Amino acid sequence: MGHGGGGALSAELVEHIFAPAFGGETLAQLGDSAAVTLAGARLAFSTDSYVVRPLFFPGGSIGDLAVNGTVNDLAMRGARAAYLSCGFILEEGVEMSVVARVAEALGAAARAAGVEVATGDTKVVESGHGDGVFLNTAGIGLIPPGVDLRPQRVVPGDVVVVSGDIGVHGVAIMSVREGLEFGVEIESDCAALGELVDAMLAVTPDLHVLRDPTRGGLAAALNEIATASGTGIVIQERAVPVPPGVANACAILGLDPMYVANEGKLVAFVPREHADAVLGAMRSHRLGANAAVIGEVVADHPTMVVARTGLGGTRVVDLPIGEQLPRIC
Amino acid sequence: MGHGGGGALSAELVEHIFAPAFGGETLAQLGDSAAVTLAGARLAFSTDSYVVRPLFFPGGSIGDLAVNGTVNDLAMRGARAAYLSCGFILEEGVEMSVVARVAEALGAAARAAGVEVATGDTKVVESGHGDGVFLNTAGIGLIPPGVDLRPQRVVPGDVVVVSGDIGVHGVAIMSVREGLEFGVEIESDCAALGELVDAMLAVTPDLHVLRDPTRGGLAAALNEIATASGTGIVIQERAVPVPPGVANACAILGLDPMYVANEGKLVAFVPREHADAVLGAMRSHRLGANAAVIGEVVADHPTMVVARTGLGGTRVVDLPIGEQLPRIC
Repeated sequence: MGHGGGGALSAELVEHIFAPAFGGETLAQLGDSAAVTLAGARLAFSTDSYVVRPLFFPGGSIGDLAVNGTVNDLAMRGARAAYLSCGFILEEGVEMSVVARVAEALGAAARAAGVEVATGDTKVVESGHGDGVFLNTAGIGLIPPGVDLRPQRVVPGDVVVVSGDIGVHGVAIMSVREGLEFGVEIESDCAALGELVDAMLAVTPDLHVLRDPTRGGLAAALNEIATASGTGIVIQERAVPVPPGVANACAILGLDPMYVANEGKLVAFVPREHADAVLGAMRSHRLGANAAVIGEVVADHPTMVVARTGLGGTRVVDLPIGEQLPRIC
Repeated sequence: MGHGGGGALSAELVEHIFAPAFGGETLAQLGDSAAVTLAGARLAFSTDSYVVRPLFFPGGSIGDLAVNGTVNDLAMRGARAAYLSCGFILEEGVEMSVVARVAEALGAAARAAGVEVATGDTKVVESGHGDGVFLNTAGIGLIPPGVDLRPQRVVPGDVVVVSGDIGVHGVAIMSVREGLEFGVEIESDCAALGELVDAMLAVTPDLHVLRDPTRGGLAAALNEIATASGTGIVIQERAVPVPPGVANACAILGLDPMYVANEGKLVAFVPREHADAVLGAMRSHRLGANAAVIGEVVADHPTMVVARTGLGGTRVVDLPIGEQLPRIC
């Protein structure tokens, strides 16, 4: 299960099996989406499969995830999603009303994100060889001129900003899956980030990298950037926005919110001179209202992420091995 | 199971559930791939999921299918595939060596087809909730200027050409799945058709429509075109190239080769004045060596496909309800 968790085991699978087998240069960039050139234009191109359980959860569904997840992967390249493809793998016997509800959620999420579902496919497998509904989406969008978002551009001095509360999606899924109650119902933060990214790029196209911290949480996203950029990252633990419901749930379950998945948040590495203006633009958008500076990039301890704790200590924030909770997306 | 078979039940699912839910104009075109406009360029965009059993079969594997299937969907718009995405859904416990073999087959097929695997994703589901390896690929490619392949362009007088022997892929899968022996081993015809299509378009960009007759076979492809164009199609049954091994296997199993899936064949609707030249170009390519004219488009019996039998009779070739053999691709 760990190989699907977005952590160290996933990275091994890509590095040792997929990248050598496929051999392309674009795949080797290993971003949330690929930047490719076609007809002289720079396109972002990305895919994700969605196997979340349950199919419907507080704040969203597999249909919302399938749109927003892929739209966000394109947004992390600075691209507004233009077209989505959509592949259904249905398990024999799944209620047609469930398929219809998933399709309606997917269609509504696409309209909300301003992206068109242009092409699709359906396969059916025998009962016991699938799990209700699996979805895959791929997306394409134009990367605006002058925008070049990739971890290799990160340099010491960059300011690390998150767009809002972390850990919400993972805890929302966990609460329904495990039948846990944490006093308040926590709804997934699942959302499309294209408009927020546009608002940030309107301040300056010179953002260095964006990442949406999904599987493996903020910890995995920061570690991938530290490794790819060869820089060190220092996080102020107290500055990371964790809502009380998530903090309580994590305390009860022995989880670290830094490792819990998000589906409507991003982390941005911003040149210091633009940090205040970008933060202001984020806070003016409903999906960035709780944006916060959480740390900075340093020349010390290259490839390593460390957190300064509330008590003045320092701890290393490792890349997780797998995902704490399987099938959250 | 029938809803995944590419026949009437699949069409119902798309018409009554997916198209209304997604609501886009592009999806409503319902071709093998969508034609979309981005940055002023016309792109073909397509996706398919692959759930074939077994993963490896005579003449190919799920990795070959995942490349060639999507490359061919783009080729049916006249586009050479430029980039592919690739999503793996792995079942917990699948041997890593199997995943590696699939990835290597996929990489080799991509290199053979001249397409780059640019982006990917892996999910893992618990044992008993998947079936070894499911794959999804999506692809993008440029549609050359002047090329406009769609069933609405088909008119009475058009000549119907197939690129070679039909029914081979389906029988190859059936022979290994059911443990049947038909005297000779039949290998899948799985192949990428981009180069063959380029050779045809070099004769004239004015082909009317191309279709690769996969699930539901030649019968489903012809019925889709008859319905979308509002024309009638007449096939000369004796002109349809069916190799003896396929004919024997179908006779034993009570199947009609017209309904058996192909993975390296196409059917073309060609203006009569270009038919000889296009047929010549096809026969000059190794994947079209056995190309044949099998029929023509008529003004009679609109939306209906009929076959003239060897005995001088006529039979209606219906749209199949589902697929005779599930999980062939």
